[in-house]
Amino acid sequence: MIRVGVLGYGYWGPNLVRNFWESPGTDLKAVSDMSAARLEAAHARYPAVRMTTDYRDLLEASDIDAIAIATPVSTHFDLAMAALRAGKHVLIEKPMCETSEQAERLIEEAAHRRLTVFVEHTFVYTGAVRKISELARSGTLGDIYYYDSVRVNLGLFQRDVNVVWDLAVHDLAIMDAVLPQKPVAVSASGISHFPGSHEDVAYLTLFFDSPMIAHVHVNWLSPVKMRRTLLGGSRQMVVYDDLEPSEKVRVYDRGVTLNEGAEDVYQMLVGYRTGDMWAPQVGVTEALATSVGHFAESISAGTVPETDGEAGLRVVRILEAASHSIADRGRVVDLARR
Amino acid sequence: MIRVGVLGYGYWGPNLVRNFWESPGTDLKAVSDMSAARLEAAHARYPAVRMTTDYRDLLEASDIDAIAIATPVSTHFDLAMAALRAGKHVLIEKPMCETSEQAERLIEEAAHRRLTVFVEHTFVYTGAVRKISELARSGTLGDIYYYDSVRVNLGLFQRDVNVVWDLAVHDLAIMDAVLPQKPVAVSASGISHFPGSHEDVAYLTLFFDSPMIAHVHVNWLSPVKMRRTLLGGSRQMVVYDDLEPSEKVRVYDRGVTLNEGAEDVYQMLVGYRTGDMWAPQVGVTEALATSVGHFAESISAGTVPETDGEAGLRVVRILEAASHSIADRGRVVDLARR
Amino acid sequence: MIRVGVLGYGYWGPNLVRNFWESPGTDLKAVSDMSAARLEAAHARYPAVRMTTDYRDLLEASDIDAIAIATPVSTHFDLAMAALRAGKHVLIEKPMCETSEQAERLIEEAAHRRLTVFVEHTFVYTGAVRKISELARSGTLGDIYYYDSVRVNLGLFQRDVNVVWDLAVHDLAIMDAVLPQKPVAVSASGISHFPGSHEDVAYLTLFFDSPMIAHVHVNWLSPVKMRRTLLGGSRQMVVYDDLEPSEKVRVYDRGVTLNEGAEDVYQMLVGYRTGDMWAPQVGVTEALATSVGHFAESISAGTVPETDGEAGLRVVRILEAASHSIADRGRVVDLARR
Amino acid sequence: MIRVGVLGYGYWGPNLVRNFWESPGTDLKAVSDMSAARLEAAHARYPAVRMTTDYRDLLEASDIDAIAIATPVSTHFDLAMAALRAGKHVLIEKPMCETSEQAERLIEEAAHRRLTVFVEHTFVYTGAVRKISELARSGTLGDIYYYDSVRVNLGLFQRDVNVVWDLAVHDLAIMDAVLPQKPVAVSASGISHFPGSHEDVAYLTLFFDSPMIAHVHVNWLSPVKMRRTLLGGSRQMVVYDDLEPSEKVRVYDRGVTLNEGAEDVYQMLVGYRTGDMWAPQVGVTEALATSVGHFAESISAGTVPETDGEAGLRVVRILEAASHSIADRGRVVDLARR
Repeated sequence: MIRVGVLGYGYWGPNLVRNFWESPGTDLKAVSDMSAARLEAAHARYPAVRMTTDYRDLLEASDIDAIAIATPVSTHFDLAMAALRAGKHVLIEKPMCETSEQAERLIEEAAHRRLTVFVEHTFVYTGAVRKISELARSGTLGDIYYYDSVRVNLGLFQRDVNVVWDLAVHDLAIMDAVLPQKPVAVSASGISHFPGSHEDVAYLTLFFDSPMIAHVHVNWLSPVKMRRTLLGGSRQMVVYDDLEPSEKVRVYDRGVTLNEGAEDVYQMLVGYRTGDMWAPQVGVTEALATSVGHFAESISAGTVPETDGEAGLRVVRILEAASHSIADRGRVVDLARR
Repeated sequence: MIRVGVLGYGYWGPNLVRNFWESPGTDLKAVSDMSAARLEAAHARYPAVRMTTDYRDLLEASDIDAIAIATPVSTHFDLAMAALRAGKHVLIEKPMCETSEQAERLIEEAAHRRLTVFVEHTFVYTGAVRKISELARSGTLGDIYYYDSVRVNLGLFQRDVNVVWDLAVHDLAIMDAVLPQKPVAVSASGISHFPGSHEDVAYLTLFFDSPMIAHVHVNWLSPVKMRRTLLGGSRQMVVYDDLEPSEKVRVYDRGVTLNEGAEDVYQMLVGYRTGDMWAPQVGVTEALATSVGHFAESISAGTVPETDGEAGLRVVRILEAASHSIADRGRVVDLARR
Repeated sequence: MIRVGVLGYGYWGPNLVRNFWESPGTDLKAVSDMSAARLEAAHARYPAVRMTTDYRDLLEASDIDAIAIATPVSTHFDLAMAALRAGKHVLIEKPMCETSEQAERLIEEAAHRRLTVFVEHTFVYTGAVRKISELARSGTLGDIYYYDSVRVNLGLFQRDVNVVWDLAVHDLAIMDAVLPQKPVAVSASGISHFPGSHEDVAYLTLFFDSPMIAHVHVNWLSPVKMRRTLLGGSRQMVVYDDLEPSEKVRVYDRGVTLNEGAEDVYQMLVGYRTGDMWAPQVGVTEALATSVGHFAESISAGTVPETDGEAGLRVVRILEAASHSIADRGRVVDLARR
Repeated sequence: MIRVGVLGYGYWGPNLVRNFWESPGTDLKAVSDMSAARLEAAHARYPAVRMTTDYRDLLEASDIDAIAIATPVSTHFDLAMAALRAGKHVLIEKPMCETSEQAERLIEEAAHRRLTVFVEHTFVYTGAVRKISELARSGTLGDIYYYDSVRVNLGLFQRDVNVVWDLAVHDLAIMDAVLPQKPVAVSASGISHFPGSHEDVAYLTLFFDSPMIAHVHVNWLSPVKMRRTLLGGSRQMVVYDDLEPSEKVRVYDRGVTLNEGAEDVYQMLVGYRTGDMWAPQVGVTEALATSVGHFAESISAGTVPETDGEAGLRVVRILEAASHSIADRGRVVDLARR
């Protein structure tokens, strides 16, 4: 049983707290937030859990093994570093940090102290993404041709990050888990429509060392909500629509065939085939429940979690490169290797 | 009554021929194609129309006022120039030419001879695009924030052009008609998955001299067909789904509001409002019927058609720039002004 | 402030309890259920609320003004009658009772004691149904031609009632609130596929004294969930899809026109017109919050609630008649007037 | 090669004519219609085919083997009987006749003369219905629980028949081909909203000698078009949506399981299971092409066509019974056996 303290009871914190409370592998001990009003709400809901406005109370507590951080991104590094130095394992909400340099330092500190760093890439723990990952990595889809994602809705504008750090982070985390290869460069464009506000519409293109391309469209100004990913392979293709109530993942037995020797001026060199569509049943467990369970197991068993600090770092590197690219009107930025 | 000859009876030619045949303002005189088999099919359908494998017969015919060109793109310039020199008005299928330099020369030749050049940007003549244009240009939508289009399906691979010249040409033509401003630069990325074949997946970003951005996703390898455009404005927003059988255009009374003085660390600076949605009835006349009618009227009245050579040139310039950008991994290419 | 006790903490009870707890107009005092385990769960959530396995504790409590009944239908009458006799106002979950005779007796008892009987017809308090009611009753839709509802899904089989009493009750309650007229007869067909189980698929047709028809399809064996109502009027028509995340109510400016003097053997006597579609923004307040608030207000102000005992009785009468009709292979059963 | 003459070039006739013209198994010889204008249109399209306003020319022609009848329903019997007496095979559009007695007489006449009677139940020859039939008859779906169809749209009002004879005829023809059992009784309700016009909204319930039920909703006054059938079986369930562009048939591995010994007052006796969904690729050949091909083959090979006179008769019997039931407010009408 991993004893947990949670920092931050704002937008996402209550979900973390609820899952730590309900998970059989974790024991929720304390919650910290700067707002007394929010703590009062938390107390009404969890009277047996300690509440404090001073996060240091949690770092110093001897009955706490792990700290979960659900505060604004700008505070992730300092809080996580303090927690590691206090000998606590850490779960950090996505994105992991503001810079890749910060992420690297956290990874080193944790390695040095033999502590677990878990980046809470929620979508990786959904039944849908697990199924897609299985299809992509088992070769069922064949060679991956492209990954295309649209993640748009109206609002909610974030105060401290732009739409890329807010929304594309999900797609980058999913790609990191699903795709057999890692991107080598990124080009991004974005625009802000309100003075003093961050980019609210953006497009990212990821380049690979193979004939594959990935693209993400994120937008806080869309009149309709969409969460749809196309994943094209040489054998099969996937449409993943996270807003579909039941058939979130659809696998199409469709593709392209090469027509040898087509000579006609109007005729295509490349034909296509269409076959059945198949929507596998996917698990409906709340992703966060799986996520916190996996966090606790990793600590207990001393194993490397699926979304470890390295995964968090890879995602932050792309976000960082995307920010540089946006600032330079889409210039391609190479991703450093480690 | 404009007397017309059509060059090319391949993929799109039969649609042109049918509409010239049925249009009250045009009189279809002759059809030319290099394939005797295709001409035979045309003859069976239109026994009263002359058929020939030599396009020069049409250029020389004294009973023909205008030539419509529905041949592969690589032949557009030569055929259109020959037609103009023979004193014929020309309708050219999109894209107008292979290069902007070709387009410019055609415009000059036509101006010199006082002949009409009409670029057959079909979608501009649909009821849906006419309605959107009306909304955008009347100020109903407010300031335009972005234009985002997805145009994907499985196949059909083109022999002589890539997916940008095949599919994005439609979006660029629509934007040219709808948006109050013209783009100043373009960045594009694309990839080819088959040896010796053109790019089959591509992304274009268009930059403007105002806080507006446009983006087009075109793809010949999508398991599902999509034709969906988002157009965000400061007052209202539009979703245009060309595959919707009845409500192709949806206007959302939704947008963003600025919250002055929001101080909370989690609170948004920008809020949003949601209101009614409205799907105006749009005309269902076949776009090509409207298009050939407008062509004939422009000639008869001596007026400049909506999709004249300049419109065709503007679209070709962007296609050209996009090709350069793709070849250079997304480098931004400025669009020349005229 | 109305002080409330809730009987039943099974499927729907927790929702009632939560809303009474959160509503500004009500003060939740006690909850009763036969299961100690369920009460324990309730206690963990609401430590300040009294829990008891004996419902009589609530009837006898001097600090309770009103009793809410969320127990199986077969117990509604006895519990509601006991509550009224104890001088308490009552909120009864739908369907109100097992028979119309029971409903009539509750109404009489309440009238005699000047107590409020509120039947918790939840859907009547949704933003969508309020909007439709407004459209239908204001004449915007014109004369109502038909009301057609499909309410199907897989499971959940009920132990004590058939699919009509479980699902059609919602449609009957909505119709009671929306339609300007009341039905005069009902014909119903249904079938049970499992030994010892109730009807799991059923169809109801309601007849009126005017050229209007209503129909309800309810089904516990559908592979997909549907909650869709068509409401046709002479001026406008409504599609109400409760599963749509945002545009639940769509109003179509479509209808039929009579062509005078059409003589052709193939030509229609009746033409049709199509116009715009409009999806009004509808309130998103949880229906049960509105419902319990209206219950409390009715008691405080001494006014008749919208879904009073008479509304509950009208719905039970149709359910009762439908049961008779199903047992007699769809025989039309006239509805008694009061 | 079957030599064919077609009677009627109104709404559906042009489709028949086109398919007979293009089918490799048939040779279109002549077309008859009372309207000279319609014949002129036909002639322009098929200059090699004889046109006549006198249908007797076709019956007397020695170069015609078979007559196809696409005239109003009220003329089907007389024309078909005349054709049979002239020694011609007949294809009759659905519904076959106005009465079952007429259908019986045609069957007898054809049997006597050893001629083929083919009722053109188009939907039976679609790829979608062929696939569903295969699933239902092979036992893949298990026992059939219900068949539920919705076929609604705005207009087109028919001059000579009501909405049941116009639209439900399709569902009855599909059921006749798909379901392993035949109905034994029917109850129907319908209503007309326009003076002197036929029923425009109707509901049919079909009863069987087994625990199965079928239901059809047809409506000429729906603001939206729907063509959707649910087919529930004990093993799998089908949703057939004819308006879906690609996945018309969806097979759900979902169903119900009996929970033995469930004792809890709130617990269900019946649980359910959900599994994968599968959308088999279905043939996209135009149904009418398959239909006329099958007609020609049946004549050539002397075999009984799938939609023979008996199938047409079974459908007319149900339509006839439905009309009686509607006239008597839904009274159950038993279907005669043969």
